[in-house]
Amino acid sequence: MHMANSYSPSGGAQLAPEDAALLDRRDRVLGAPYRLFYQRPVHFVRGEGVFLYDADGNDYLDAYNNVPVVGHSNPVVRARVSEQLGVLNTHTRYLTDGVVGYAERLIERFGGAVDQAVFVCTGSEAVDLALRMARHVTGRRGVIATSHAYHGTTEAAAAISPSLGPNNVIPADIVLVDAPDLSASDSQAQAHEFAQRVETAVATLRERGVEPAALIIDSIMSSDGLQGTVPVLGAAAEVIRRHGGLYIADEVQPGFGRTGDWWGFQRHELSPDLVVIGKPMGNGIPIAAVLGRTAVFDDFGRDVRYFNTFGGNPVSIAAADAVLDEIDNRGLRENAAKVGVELHTAFAELASQDKGISSVRGAGLFLALELADDGVPNAARAIAIVNHMRDARVLISASGPAENVLKIRPPLVFTSEHVPRMTDALHRALDASAG
Amino acid sequence: MHMANSYSPSGGAQLAPEDAALLDRRDRVLGAPYRLFYQRPVHFVRGEGVFLYDADGNDYLDAYNNVPVVGHSNPVVRARVSEQLGVLNTHTRYLTDGVVGYAERLIERFGGAVDQAVFVCTGSEAVDLALRMARHVTGRRGVIATSHAYHGTTEAAAAISPSLGPNNVIPADIVLVDAPDLSASDSQAQAHEFAQRVETAVATLRERGVEPAALIIDSIMSSDGLQGTVPVLGAAAEVIRRHGGLYIADEVQPGFGRTGDWWGFQRHELSPDLVVIGKPMGNGIPIAAVLGRTAVFDDFGRDVRYFNTFGGNPVSIAAADAVLDEIDNRGLRENAAKVGVELHTAFAELASQDKGISSVRGAGLFLALELADDGVPNAARAIAIVNHMRDARVLISASGPAENVLKIRPPLVFTSEHVPRMTDALHRALDASAG
Repeated sequence: MHMANSYSPSGGAQLAPEDAALLDRRDRVLGAPYRLFYQRPVHFVRGEGVFLYDADGNDYLDAYNNVPVVGHSNPVVRARVSEQLGVLNTHTRYLTDGVVGYAERLIERFGGAVDQAVFVCTGSEAVDLALRMARHVTGRRGVIATSHAYHGTTEAAAAISPSLGPNNVIPADIVLVDAPDLSASDSQAQAHEFAQRVETAVATLRERGVEPAALIIDSIMSSDGLQGTVPVLGAAAEVIRRHGGLYIADEVQPGFGRTGDWWGFQRHELSPDLVVIGKPMGNGIPIAAVLGRTAVFDDFGRDVRYFNTFGGNPVSIAAADAVLDEIDNRGLRENAAKVGVELHTAFAELASQDKGISSVRGAGLFLALELADDGVPNAARAIAIVNHMRDARVLISASGPAENVLKIRPPLVFTSEHVPRMTDALHRALDASAG
Repeated sequence: MHMANSYSPSGGAQLAPEDAALLDRRDRVLGAPYRLFYQRPVHFVRGEGVFLYDADGNDYLDAYNNVPVVGHSNPVVRARVSEQLGVLNTHTRYLTDGVVGYAERLIERFGGAVDQAVFVCTGSEAVDLALRMARHVTGRRGVIATSHAYHGTTEAAAAISPSLGPNNVIPADIVLVDAPDLSASDSQAQAHEFAQRVETAVATLRERGVEPAALIIDSIMSSDGLQGTVPVLGAAAEVIRRHGGLYIADEVQPGFGRTGDWWGFQRHELSPDLVVIGKPMGNGIPIAAVLGRTAVFDDFGRDVRYFNTFGGNPVSIAAADAVLDEIDNRGLRENAAKVGVELHTAFAELASQDKGISSVRGAGLFLALELADDGVPNAARAIAIVNHMRDARVLISASGPAENVLKIRPPLVFTSEHVPRMTDALHRALDASAG
């Protein structure tokens, strides 16, 4: 299966002998489901803050990884997890303090939009559970998602993830809608148009004899190519609710301060029925969650037996609690807003000199540069830039339906001092890849 | 939803004021999906080895929890995880050493039955992925599982988990078969009879227009009430293969030395097509895996894009590697075999004096006592014993279709010196609960 920015042995890249040997062993025991980034894969042995290091001690500026949100090898997370590992790590069928205190602290960040949480281990588990909840409480099966969405890898999550490619079968109870114009600056027209598409999708479901249980949207539409800052989802949320379905905000990508807000849905003037969070939540310790209102959780919890063995265990909670501490104490959400503007300004300046950049967009520290020549997407240039920057030791990637969108999404400890290295490398990569 | 051994506020148990206050906060933010064990829930603040401790410093002998397989707060796991958290924790799209070395080490323990692994975070994710793989490579949808199985909580895993209760809908592409007689001592007759049931299930699927993709069995049939030591599954595995389906061994419960063998399927004289492992793998750090043969992984990996963000990350791998070290260096698999026999002998002695115990069975440190009076299951006595033992500070639980089976499944650091406290408490609980 094709994947943007993936290594291919037929690409002819020269690997260091020790990397070639490791790759050979890897192919034998991990095999075909595992793909590597880059024409020339990177072998990392250490990470610290916003940098990763290869075996020769070279530093790579990480402008891609959103999991180590408070920095690679964060010492506060490390200390809290290490401490908890020496005290207690059990499940939620015994009373323990940490999970309750963390749930309270997390829910406070939603400003009343949600009041309960269920902890799981991955974003995929969270999406899968949110779908189970929506289907149970509505008694319906239909789900509407965007046409290049990614929501996860369980069977149910993959079924609403068309970005997984042509072999990923989308069943009849799922209807896809094109995302709003991602570079739109007129939010009212876009919101209206997108709401209309959701109306049509509801009608399509009904033609198939399926009632709508939910509309699920990644609040920044990462895999669709990354949406900007204008509010476009509120009207669609009203549509799904008017038809008796739930609105699920997928915050696995935009959540935890990345966009400058705590949650991506806040830009869209809507209040979700269910929220799923994950990736950065434990800075790499697997933890994720579904949040919602008590009425929904009561309905599901009364009828369905749900238990997640590792979900919300004391060690995961210690990591998640340390992440909130770090975001708060170091002002990382505010940093995301501020440095995001600096990057956006620098990218816009580059775009003003390069006709191949058709759009610069994003929110906070989640930015996209779209590459197109006279409206024709240029995926080849995008992938050339990604690999050129890898050689300059700056990590980014490419995504979007046409794979022509550069994705810049650093840990939130990426500060103003890292901007020049990022923009210089991008500048050179743009020049080197110019047609 | 009813659950054996669950706390009910209407039970009238007196909780300590601080526990009542914590429970009240918990109910507000975690709510209905969360259930607690015991008529009087336990509040744990610390764990060490085979013991958990409440806030007053009382020790509870843990004869229930299989996740902390090498002991609560294991210092080797703690040291390795802490070290790795200070070095590197990233995903598998960069080359890293740990995941390759661990995969090689893990695969070696299967004696040639499997040669590749995909790492995920939970047993549910592993089961879900194994089902996706089986369905993809066979191009079929049908799955056969046992009639009181538990395989996980994703939508696809819950669909083959009838033990989740009457509100858990089993779709038409799933057919359930009764488990073999769990207390059987005549393995040949049982194996034949069970294989016949699988034959009938294949026919039932075909009547529904569905071809069989897989037969999935927990190799110790934990939720069906726990199977003993006689080999009964080999013939059924042959049946599913003859009909073009895959045999999936669910080793989430029996795996990693618990039965005295490395894997539960080894008792059954069969070679599985896919294996799922989880729970004890990282001693509480979320990690799980699907293992199988290269041909199956090639087929799936070539066509389907799969990636698990946290799956096989360096910190999870460090935990899993430390678990293998501890099992090896402390002889915990051999300990499970030896102490399992000691417990089995002691339980058989108690059973010889108590007509209400209809069967003692199990393998290694996974044991069951079935409670029945003249063939009538006695769930009330089982739950009375579980709660009586909780008051004596020994942790066990109850399971099985009739909830009349005591489940004894301690961490593998449960040694001969812990046997008397376990059997004394059980003896007293049996006496106190005698009709």
